[in-house]
Amino acid sequence: MKPILIVHGGAGDIPQSRVQGKLDGVRLAVKEGYKVLLHNGSALAAVEAAVVSMEKDEYFNAGYGSVLNLAGEVEMEASIMSGQNLDVGAVTLIKDFLHPISIAHKVLTDSPHSLLGGQGAKQFALEKGFQTVPPESLISENAKAALNEFLKRGEFGRTEIGIAEGGVGTVGAVAIDTNGHIAVATSTGGMSGKAVGRIGDTPQIGSGTYADDNIGGVSTTGHGESILKYCLAHSIIKLMENGTDATTATKNAVTGMTSRLKNTAGAITLSKNGDIGIYFSSNRMAWAYIKDDKLYYGIEQNEVHEDGYVKT
Amino acid sequence: MKPILIVHGGAGDIPQSRVQGKLDGVRLAVKEGYKVLLHNGSALAAVEAAVVSMEKDEYFNAGYGSVLNLAGEVEMEASIMSGQNLDVGAVTLIKDFLHPISIAHKVLTDSPHSLLGGQGAKQFALEKGFQTVPPESLISENAKAALNEFLKRGEFGRTEIGIAEGGVGTVGAVAIDTNGHIAVATSTGGMSGKAVGRIGDTPQIGSGTYADDNIGGVSTTGHGESILKYCLAHSIIKLMENGTDATTATKNAVTGMTSRLKNTAGAITLSKNGDIGIYFSSNRMAWAYIKDDKLYYGIEQNEVHEDGYVKT
Repeated sequence: MKPILIVHGGAGDIPQSRVQGKLDGVRLAVKEGYKVLLHNGSALAAVEAAVVSMEKDEYFNAGYGSVLNLAGEVEMEASIMSGQNLDVGAVTLIKDFLHPISIAHKVLTDSPHSLLGGQGAKQFALEKGFQTVPPESLISENAKAALNEFLKRGEFGRTEIGIAEGGVGTVGAVAIDTNGHIAVATSTGGMSGKAVGRIGDTPQIGSGTYADDNIGGVSTTGHGESILKYCLAHSIIKLMENGTDATTATKNAVTGMTSRLKNTAGAITLSKNGDIGIYFSSNRMAWAYIKDDKLYYGIEQNEVHEDGYVKT
Repeated sequence: MKPILIVHGGAGDIPQSRVQGKLDGVRLAVKEGYKVLLHNGSALAAVEAAVVSMEKDEYFNAGYGSVLNLAGEVEMEASIMSGQNLDVGAVTLIKDFLHPISIAHKVLTDSPHSLLGGQGAKQFALEKGFQTVPPESLISENAKAALNEFLKRGEFGRTEIGIAEGGVGTVGAVAIDTNGHIAVATSTGGMSGKAVGRIGDTPQIGSGTYADDNIGGVSTTGHGESILKYCLAHSIIKLMENGTDATTATKNAVTGMTSRLKNTAGAITLSKNGDIGIYFSSNRMAWAYIKDDKLYYGIEQNEVHEDGYVKT
């Protein structure tokens, strides 16, 4: 089948000043991942490439640009899942690597375990040849501003954000490759002003990430604690397994979560047949996908832009 | 309604020498929890009390008696969930507290977050008045023997065990109280010979633990990486939501996981109507429940013992 790739750059009350940067970033990321698929790369390699592109980008809350915890530190987490055999790799409480998603992918391929955290995750990454970076090199001006705003405001917003943003922008990607295999990757810095040691939905399988070749793939973003209580990704997967289409499943699960838990989220979904679901209960969510070699993207409710055919 | 409490003491190839200790332990634990329910305690308080009883008990892989990682250390994790509002508390990478489930319960009530890990979890526990214990005080002779056996064998078994055991015995409890509220708690030391920093299914909501007053509650045990890839607890919940009874849902999800991922697990389930599901694809799983004031228990396939009326 023709490959498809869809990415998101985080759901939340994204301020106007950050809209263009996010739109540019998701379009770049989806092209980076799609290139891998067109060269017969695997869905796993493609979602990693798309997420790596956003982890490098200051406009997203993942890798460089991650938001800060109450101690002013970056603590990141990421997960990746193969729909072929349900293999999982995930990491959490990562402080000094630029690309948590690549370490997560290595956990998937090289560890008997699925999720590694903190010092153990660092030790694994070093053994596998990943290079540390100075933790302060991951901190952006925007992330500092977001923490300061949080400390002034003193409470969490309804999504992973500050009004000055910085907490918006968990990133994710879902792909189906030419062999019909599905993979999903998600990466985040969490929420501004989170407690030291807080683990969110992103490394929890079925909450931030889920992939099953027999059904489809989902990556979520938004208020992490609500997403994990609702098992948002797995809820969408189970609706599709029972015959609901990707669009309706994504909308129904996200609105179900928001109705039950009073916080917002978004999700991107691909069915095994290549149908796409995009839905967010937050004000904005940056997303982009390439299907039949055409690129589509958006960030507002009920907005779809088309870039036309992708030159690769 | 009349309260019900069900507990498990872990699924696996439990050696004969450990059978009686586990049967005694689950019967004690279910009585401890039931006592709370009879005194109009909440389902949350009851599942915590049942799990605390097993965390103290050397016969279970949780709290004292937890199995050891490759560095010879205890690293524990636990989660607790309220079916009333889907509130969650969970901790992971806990090294020096006897009762991880009580810290998890405090996360549920006192933290804006759902899951705390490592140093951050320790800091939270200390702020809330929990007392540390010397890490070596949590190590049992059986756990040492299990690690030694793992190091000789050099590979993970199909469940969380060694042949000499020690890795068997994640504990869990599911309760419905007189107000019809459901709660679930799960606590574990993980698997013998796990990498430092390995996080399993227990703190991942939807994998080790799930509760929803509108549907029911589930606690799982077995091969952690398989349970989290399959989202075992949430899979059982979703089957029940779609009309499958507790017994069939538990059996179908556990056998589905074992068929797809070739590892074994077990689960205990309560529906909102008080129907019970108990199923394990491993050789043995210790379990006990009290319903209509009668205590039932077992550990072998197709075995149910009855203790008769519980004096409380």
